Amino acid sequence: MAEKKLVEAITSMDEDFAQWYTDVVKKAELIEYTSVKGCMAIKPYGYAIWELIQKQLDERFKETGVENVYMPMFIPESLLQKEKDHVEGFAPEVAWVTHGGLTELQERLCVRPTSETLFCDFYKNDIHSYRDLPRVYNQWCSVVRWEKETRPFLRSREFLWQEGHTAHATMEEAEERTIQMLNLYADFCEEVLAMPVIRGKKTDKEKFAGAEATYTIEALMHDGKALQSGTSHNFGDGFAKAFGIQFTDKDNKLKYVYQTSWGMTTRLIGAIIMVHGDNSGLVLPPRVAPVQIMIIPIQQKKEGVLEMAYALRDRLSGFRVKVDDTDKSPGWKFSEQEMRGIPIRVEIGPKDIEAGRCVICRRDTREKIEVRLEELEEKADEILEQMQKDMLERARAHRDAHTSVATNMAELEDILNNRPGFVKAMWCGDQACEDQIKEKFAATSRCMPFEQEHLSDTCVCCGKPAKKMVYWGRAY
Amino acid sequence: MAEKKLVEAITSMDEDFAQWYTDVVKKAELIEYTSVKGCMAIKPYGYAIWELIQKQLDERFKETGVENVYMPMFIPESLLQKEKDHVEGFAPEVAWVTHGGLTELQERLCVRPTSETLFCDFYKNDIHSYRDLPRVYNQWCSVVRWEKETRPFLRSREFLWQEGHTAHATMEEAEERTIQMLNLYADFCEEVLAMPVIRGKKTDKEKFAGAEATYTIEALMHDGKALQSGTSHNFGDGFAKAFGIQFTDKDNKLKYVYQTSWGMTTRLIGAIIMVHGDNSGLVLPPRVAPVQIMIIPIQQKKEGVLEMAYALRDRLSGFRVKVDDTDKSPGWKFSEQEMRGIPIRVEIGPKDIEAGRCVICRRDTREKIEVRLEELEEKADEILEQMQKDMLERARAHRDAHTSVATNMAELEDILNNRPGFVKAMWCGDQACEDQIKEKFAATSRCMPFEQEHLSDTCVCCGKPAKKMVYWGRAY
Repeated sequence: MAEKKLVEAITSMDEDFAQWYTDVVKKAELIEYTSVKGCMAIKPYGYAIWELIQKQLDERFKETGVENVYMPMFIPESLLQKEKDHVEGFAPEVAWVTHGGLTELQERLCVRPTSETLFCDFYKNDIHSYRDLPRVYNQWCSVVRWEKETRPFLRSREFLWQEGHTAHATMEEAEERTIQMLNLYADFCEEVLAMPVIRGKKTDKEKFAGAEATYTIEALMHDGKALQSGTSHNFGDGFAKAFGIQFTDKDNKLKYVYQTSWGMTTRLIGAIIMVHGDNSGLVLPPRVAPVQIMIIPIQQKKEGVLEMAYALRDRLSGFRVKVDDTDKSPGWKFSEQEMRGIPIRVEIGPKDIEAGRCVICRRDTREKIEVRLEELEEKADEILEQMQKDMLERARAHRDAHTSVATNMAELEDILNNRPGFVKAMWCGDQACEDQIKEKFAATSRCMPFEQEHLSDTCVCCGKPAKKMVYWGRAY
Repeated sequence: MAEKKLVEAITSMDEDFAQWYTDVVKKAELIEYTSVKGCMAIKPYGYAIWELIQKQLDERFKETGVENVYMPMFIPESLLQKEKDHVEGFAPEVAWVTHGGLTELQERLCVRPTSETLFCDFYKNDIHSYRDLPRVYNQWCSVVRWEKETRPFLRSREFLWQEGHTAHATMEEAEERTIQMLNLYADFCEEVLAMPVIRGKKTDKEKFAGAEATYTIEALMHDGKALQSGTSHNFGDGFAKAFGIQFTDKDNKLKYVYQTSWGMTTRLIGAIIMVHGDNSGLVLPPRVAPVQIMIIPIQQKKEGVLEMAYALRDRLSGFRVKVDDTDKSPGWKFSEQEMRGIPIRVEIGPKDIEAGRCVICRRDTREKIEVRLEELEEKADEILEQMQKDMLERARAHRDAHTSVATNMAELEDILNNRPGFVKAMWCGDQACEDQIKEKFAATSRCMPFEQEHLSDTCVCCGKPAKKMVYWGRAY
């Protein structure tokens, strides 16, 4: 009865994807809503996923020479205003602190929506000579953007992220770092999150406030909508000029630095849910699964069963492993393990023990594999590796099957309305065409991919000569 | 010339301890001041120390069943006001957000000074049955307190910390967790930071706003002032009643939970500086040193020297090790290594190579030890272990030598003015005596230590019968 309820409680993906997402987020115990409008509480299971993301991303950062720092969470209004495009982009969506204790502040402070201005203010006094360059700093923190409509992980007023901010002696070096970090993000998504992404450049319309160029990785969710999953910006010397960040170069001349910034957020957890999840709940790639193996004893009151479950757990200690020894029924435990997306479960009961085997069940395919006990570690490792690979390939196949080509507006409209997914189409480079597509079809240019293709000679919108192939789509 | 400047730039500890502290914090490149009044930027070297603290503390937490979560950074005013003592304690020193974007908020939000109210609001909906207990949650985040006077690490408007918040079925279990975490903190300070601490209970006057009991660890700085280094609070069911956090117990009755909270902060970095530092700069305990071994090549332009330095680095890869291969002079490099408190330096030059040896110099004692190259790893390990132990013992000896006993006000005054340090004295338990001591001598009760002694029969202040032995002191 109770078991039925647990399963019934998830809306089917095909029926209502948005409700399915909310159900999974809640039932898998990732977050809870709070009394603070638009802000969520990240629960232990959700936070454990974030910790695994942080750890693996941070290791990759450090291999490229990134150093972590911490800047204040407040930005004085005058500082935010120093770079014109930047303040225009962010001022409408920041939270303002006006009082400290009982006293009104002389100058308002905003809670950082992003920290370019703080890093610039810091670098201005920190960088003097070419010997001080490059600076490759990053911070892990939370930021605030006063969004009107919010959804757990995807868009909330406060979210967790990392933001890298670098300073370089030359534009070439800044561009190189911008691309390096974008590729690092893309590789991370593919290798750790099993999530294929399109790497490309944003159009001017879609780039970051104050950036000269914004690069992006775009992933396709199960429902055919795109999710911007990480961005990397090249600022040229725009911020350096606005903030006066200069250094004495080897030729003894005073020059402005070139800067970049790049970030990924807790939004990635939303991406994992929407790329891999199914109607039984979450499906976690093994590399970010807080529990990789759940051992579920069958007829656990029978002599020797629990002991064997614990013994297997000890043998599997090289993995993130748990035994579900609660007094729930095995069926209920299976449902919970599935809802939480735990990659494999090991079923072990009296008959298995007698036969010297157990059953491994893969979360993604539900395949059941009989394994001899003495081979358990080896098999578990093999299956987790295979699952990590298969999940990436399955997501790639889904994305490719949901990527179409349009050569004119009629085709574009037809695809957007009937075949949700990415649409590849040529573009003349004129913002008016982007505006028109957005207005008519609520679709945006996701990126100009690094891997360009020649699909036709003319712009999908205006019919003028095409300059770039663009990925279009409806997006979160 | 330049080398002289580096050394000259530090004020002597004995001349001006406060200035020495500021010099070390800046010259060791731990922090930088920012345009945001009262907030500091933590630079890579300072943040790397914090990462090592975090990692080792978090591991110890998790061994006791702690789970990490993340709560919003904002607290609606009405939520902050739910527990009377708590709001009185914190409202005067919080930052208030009044506008989101261009809109004035209907209700002000404060930036969390601590998150009891948010956790209570969460637990209220999260806890239903005794099966949900205990809840042992923690978060790593930054908090804001609108301090008037600030000093790097010791007191700043924003600081980094961890805050644990737990809920239990019984008062006994809450008390047990409160003490468990205090002991975990104390062990961490002693074993990792090489910093001895007094474990004890705060008087009612000094306890946390809203707590039934506050426990503290108190450390003695080199200048004889005390530093509260971690606290653990037992709230009883006070917050639970204010927030309505109830659960159905095994006996099917509805009961209030019992709660605790406990925290340590970036203040610990200030403690490390002031416990271990000397007139050459920082001295870091090996377990929290971002670089444990700095290899400094002598006559590095001579053939084979740099190669050998790199070869030694590779052999020492089990440690946090670096080679200083910059074009500075060895003397300059020594000064920098000392300023940054790097535990050991390895000097290697042409003569050493010829003789098949190198010189290890310990940062704390400046002892120089000749080591045969084939023994390097083993010796380095031994010396780091020994240094970690010696630093604790030296700090303990310093503390013991700066702990006095007073039996009356004249003695107390004499000691506080002439022998800076802890003063042990008996107390009647009356707050009036604490007030008087604070007013007359600017000293506070640091704690009623777990290890009580009977020093005299009467209160140091009023002469009435004594109830408790108290550690008194001037404090940061």
